[in-house]
Amino acid sequence: MKLSRRGFFGTAATLGGLLGLASAPSATRADAGAPPARVTTLNGRSLRPRLRDGVKEFHLVAQEIEHEFAPGMKIKAWGYNGSTPGPTIEATEGDRVRLYVTNRLPEHTTIHWHGIDLPNGMDGVGGLTQPQIKPGETYAYEFTLRQHGTHMYHPHADELVQIAMGMMGLFIIHPKDGEPERIDRDYAFILHNWAVHPGTWRPDPSVMTEFDLWSFNSKVFPAIDALLARTGERIRIRVANLSMHEHPIHLHGPAFEVTGGDGGRWPRNLWRREVTEVVGVGQIRDLEVMCREPGDWALHCHKAHHTMNAMGHGIPNPLGVDQRGVAERLARLLPEYMAMGESGMAEHAEHTAMGHMQGPANTLPMMMGQGPFGPLEMGGMFTVLKVRDELPEAGGDPGWHRHPPSTLARRVSTDPSFDPGRGE
Amino acid sequence: MKLSRRGFFGTAATLGGLLGLASAPSATRADAGAPPARVTTLNGRSLRPRLRDGVKEFHLVAQEIEHEFAPGMKIKAWGYNGSTPGPTIEATEGDRVRLYVTNRLPEHTTIHWHGIDLPNGMDGVGGLTQPQIKPGETYAYEFTLRQHGTHMYHPHADELVQIAMGMMGLFIIHPKDGEPERIDRDYAFILHNWAVHPGTWRPDPSVMTEFDLWSFNSKVFPAIDALLARTGERIRIRVANLSMHEHPIHLHGPAFEVTGGDGGRWPRNLWRREVTEVVGVGQIRDLEVMCREPGDWALHCHKAHHTMNAMGHGIPNPLGVDQRGVAERLARLLPEYMAMGESGMAEHAEHTAMGHMQGPANTLPMMMGQGPFGPLEMGGMFTVLKVRDELPEAGGDPGWHRHPPSTLARRVSTDPSFDPGRGE
Amino acid sequence: MKLSRRGFFGTAATLGGLLGLASAPSATRADAGAPPARVTTLNGRSLRPRLRDGVKEFHLVAQEIEHEFAPGMKIKAWGYNGSTPGPTIEATEGDRVRLYVTNRLPEHTTIHWHGIDLPNGMDGVGGLTQPQIKPGETYAYEFTLRQHGTHMYHPHADELVQIAMGMMGLFIIHPKDGEPERIDRDYAFILHNWAVHPGTWRPDPSVMTEFDLWSFNSKVFPAIDALLARTGERIRIRVANLSMHEHPIHLHGPAFEVTGGDGGRWPRNLWRREVTEVVGVGQIRDLEVMCREPGDWALHCHKAHHTMNAMGHGIPNPLGVDQRGVAERLARLLPEYMAMGESGMAEHAEHTAMGHMQGPANTLPMMMGQGPFGPLEMGGMFTVLKVRDELPEAGGDPGWHRHPPSTLARRVSTDPSFDPGRGE
Repeated sequence: MKLSRRGFFGTAATLGGLLGLASAPSATRADAGAPPARVTTLNGRSLRPRLRDGVKEFHLVAQEIEHEFAPGMKIKAWGYNGSTPGPTIEATEGDRVRLYVTNRLPEHTTIHWHGIDLPNGMDGVGGLTQPQIKPGETYAYEFTLRQHGTHMYHPHADELVQIAMGMMGLFIIHPKDGEPERIDRDYAFILHNWAVHPGTWRPDPSVMTEFDLWSFNSKVFPAIDALLARTGERIRIRVANLSMHEHPIHLHGPAFEVTGGDGGRWPRNLWRREVTEVVGVGQIRDLEVMCREPGDWALHCHKAHHTMNAMGHGIPNPLGVDQRGVAERLARLLPEYMAMGESGMAEHAEHTAMGHMQGPANTLPMMMGQGPFGPLEMGGMFTVLKVRDELPEAGGDPGWHRHPPSTLARRVSTDPSFDPGRGE
Repeated sequence: MKLSRRGFFGTAATLGGLLGLASAPSATRADAGAPPARVTTLNGRSLRPRLRDGVKEFHLVAQEIEHEFAPGMKIKAWGYNGSTPGPTIEATEGDRVRLYVTNRLPEHTTIHWHGIDLPNGMDGVGGLTQPQIKPGETYAYEFTLRQHGTHMYHPHADELVQIAMGMMGLFIIHPKDGEPERIDRDYAFILHNWAVHPGTWRPDPSVMTEFDLWSFNSKVFPAIDALLARTGERIRIRVANLSMHEHPIHLHGPAFEVTGGDGGRWPRNLWRREVTEVVGVGQIRDLEVMCREPGDWALHCHKAHHTMNAMGHGIPNPLGVDQRGVAERLARLLPEYMAMGESGMAEHAEHTAMGHMQGPANTLPMMMGQGPFGPLEMGGMFTVLKVRDELPEAGGDPGWHRHPPSTLARRVSTDPSFDPGRGE
Repeated sequence: MKLSRRGFFGTAATLGGLLGLASAPSATRADAGAPPARVTTLNGRSLRPRLRDGVKEFHLVAQEIEHEFAPGMKIKAWGYNGSTPGPTIEATEGDRVRLYVTNRLPEHTTIHWHGIDLPNGMDGVGGLTQPQIKPGETYAYEFTLRQHGTHMYHPHADELVQIAMGMMGLFIIHPKDGEPERIDRDYAFILHNWAVHPGTWRPDPSVMTEFDLWSFNSKVFPAIDALLARTGERIRIRVANLSMHEHPIHLHGPAFEVTGGDGGRWPRNLWRREVTEVVGVGQIRDLEVMCREPGDWALHCHKAHHTMNAMGHGIPNPLGVDQRGVAERLARLLPEYMAMGESGMAEHAEHTAMGHMQGPANTLPMMMGQGPFGPLEMGGMFTVLKVRDELPEAGGDPGWHRHPPSTLARRVSTDPSFDPGRGE
């Protein structure tokens, strides 16, 4: 592709899974010579601008792509510049930006710059504020950034289909006068949902509520990058939502402050301490965290089904039913059959981790991921904030936290009738 | 009908669709001699009170009605005084009000005055705070308004069915000491969802999540009134929600301030700048916007399926599938068959606009509406805030915005391999 | 069971239904000699700690239980110490707590202390921060409470299944320096949803959105305790959500202030007046109410389907259809058949109250409850705040409010063409 040969874009992100692969800080992902990105787009990258006559130029190419949610599941999606979400656009308040949008999709498109204060003719609503961008065409949008904050870009043309297929990206405007609180690390991701029926390879845009994959930046656990921080650092987590459901984002450990949304940063008297913040659809929330306690802190959507991968809603409920023999007989007839467990679903995580059970083709196990103490039994919208006293100087994953024994939950008995009143 | 002959009520609103028909300001809709309504109820009207012995009297008649969502789709609904939602009640803090409620439904009903601080026996919960109002009966509620803000009325008797059928209305109390910020125009609407199965004529109250029509004041795009404002004006948009889903209301262009809810106006230090505000079910939000940029600014729910009309969830997903010949053969067997497009759904909007495709009887096309640059590919919860330097003195629709060429997205190439690095 | 014999736990709550049975104040539920609980857990109790060497010890036993939603419907659920939710843990900021967790389930589990600031190894995420607690094992968690507010405990192991089965509890930390406003009564409950298919006895964890039972502390109306208050008292209602949906909690009558969440109490300038507050999933909200008006004030989720019991979503819609003869013939074929009414659903509430109609085995009527003025036509997430000038000194239910006639909605006509313009 010509574009990548010319080095105009940021390089494709090294897609490092949370567990096993290193999660490189964003600065190392940019082209040599490029100013480092200030925001770390989980599993993604920032788009390098070209400066021409005082205008920052960006080029977005809408196109069909092959996308991997996690090893074992790929789809045909629609995205920008080779990925879903597309690359993050970063600029600074006061910048003049020119955004070229080339349409290599089979149908027309536009881009709406969600949350950005601009002239009406740059708003990107196909039919209402501009003609549609036909396949093969390139349009230019140009405006001056009069604000700062976390924003998005996405199509406003056949919007339901195009967003369902993965077309979205972050547009982050840094303040020209600095941050009110020092931000040591700045993370960003977009929430999304996908209906990829078992054995199929394309998202189904007609699904409205019963999705089967829930993603951060179009990745599912355990393929989502970890967030890293050193103790004493203040980090920001920018969370945007282009799905069809509200997502309550929950961070274990330290409470965070909610400091702004897609309408910009809020004055400090509105900052609100939470451990769970609901991010509405088409909404963005900036969360700022003071990292005091080292450890592996889960960061996830608190809707329990959203931290699972496809699980076959509507299957018969076997909890408490003795299934001896049934699964084996069914499996002979239906090689893809996987019963929900008689005593819960946890047994699946172990089977899956050990390779004993296989689901339908191109379908991830419901629960995945291996932690320092065994299977994590998670999927979907789940990752970890790794807070450490020291991080590897060369970048990369610091491994799992080593707990001082005095601060680790301990086993005190294997007798089910244990009574603490009689002592341990 | 006796009631309208006596001129006791406001006249039925001129139902002016957004596109094509003029949207008259509310003042022109009131009876001659009536004080003009201060709030513009989209596609609706305010109920004119009768003053008797210092008490403002209103009369609401619960009844079955014929309701049109948009030209092409009518249902049997339940409403008040001939419409769903019923007429808006406007009063002023300190007023004593008497509300007569006549039940012409086939089953009992009550009215709960949602958010209003009143004696418990006026609260309208059938069985709990009063006897049910039987068919044919009239009850009187009477209380003094000790607060101001945006509130609602709706039944609290067979509530699930009666709200699903369209019974709801706005109850707006103006402050006796004026507004903290001048409000130049004041708009109000209620969000709702409807399950009207293809080919049927009544909402199905048993549906809990998978609705197929999403409305502002029981209308769907393109039949929803536009909001009008002049540049430099500050407008208020009062949004109430009596559906079964949260709705993230998104305004393009200017950020708004969220200034209060059904608990009343918030102190100014709580006002929060947003471009998308989630309005919860049974909740109200007042949004105030300073209109600076002229243009046609979309105002819609950001859940993509809620800006579509009925779309046949669960149809097979043909994206990327070559359907040549299939649709034609199916159409011979099933005259109502409309395949989702091989390259997206946008092609439907064009076909529909040109009259080439027909859906089932009494069913709106999934995507509708014609803008200045072609089909808008929208439906459901979508309308436009038209900000203009000047508005027609006689009232009515100002037409589409005329963009100065320098502020309109422009086509720069028709070559799919366009590279801005080489210049345009 | 040994544990209860030793009196280590609080006694099981007297499960007093809202209508008919007395709702005892929490103090009377504690063991003789125990300091009275400061929080009233609706239909529940607080867990009595043992003090050992300056550490407050609590013991939670995860186990299968038999649970009754309301008289007429029992299930096999999973809970703690004999109930779902488990007993409330109350402690004070600065306390050192040791929590023993014994696993008597058929699969492994852990407990995550949601919202509590603690060392990472005490966070309770199975596989990530500790080994799973295997069946039969007991683990001890120990940490010092550095904060105050309303928090939760729940498993973080096979989380989807275990929470769906009822495993959850409240963890309330009182401030060491007192409350900023005097709190006269303090109520707490957790929102949940259940998929118990008609005729079955176990929740189905594979259901993601279309649940059929909606509960406060695992009870449905009319079995949910009433909240009591005297006029002039300020009460707090702590609402936690471990379901799969947002729940807009609506209180009739007085507006409340939202004063905090699971991230702790907010500074006073953030307190927000509302009559409906959306509690997100995995989120908690503290609502504080000044009780001025005596009466029976409904407190419920405002999603209309969530104040109904199981209602057979997907049944044909008979509104407006003459069903004479049809129901009788169907009932001969299907003894469990109950048609939705031709003129709404209210007729069911009357039939049910009179025992004329029976649903499937182990299934509650859709609408239940008897008030002072007839059937209430409610179910699920509904209860009543009873505000009285005086409450019974001996505790217990004060009965229904007696309305002064001047403050009760009154019937003024039985003529459907009633016209207030002609006088009453």
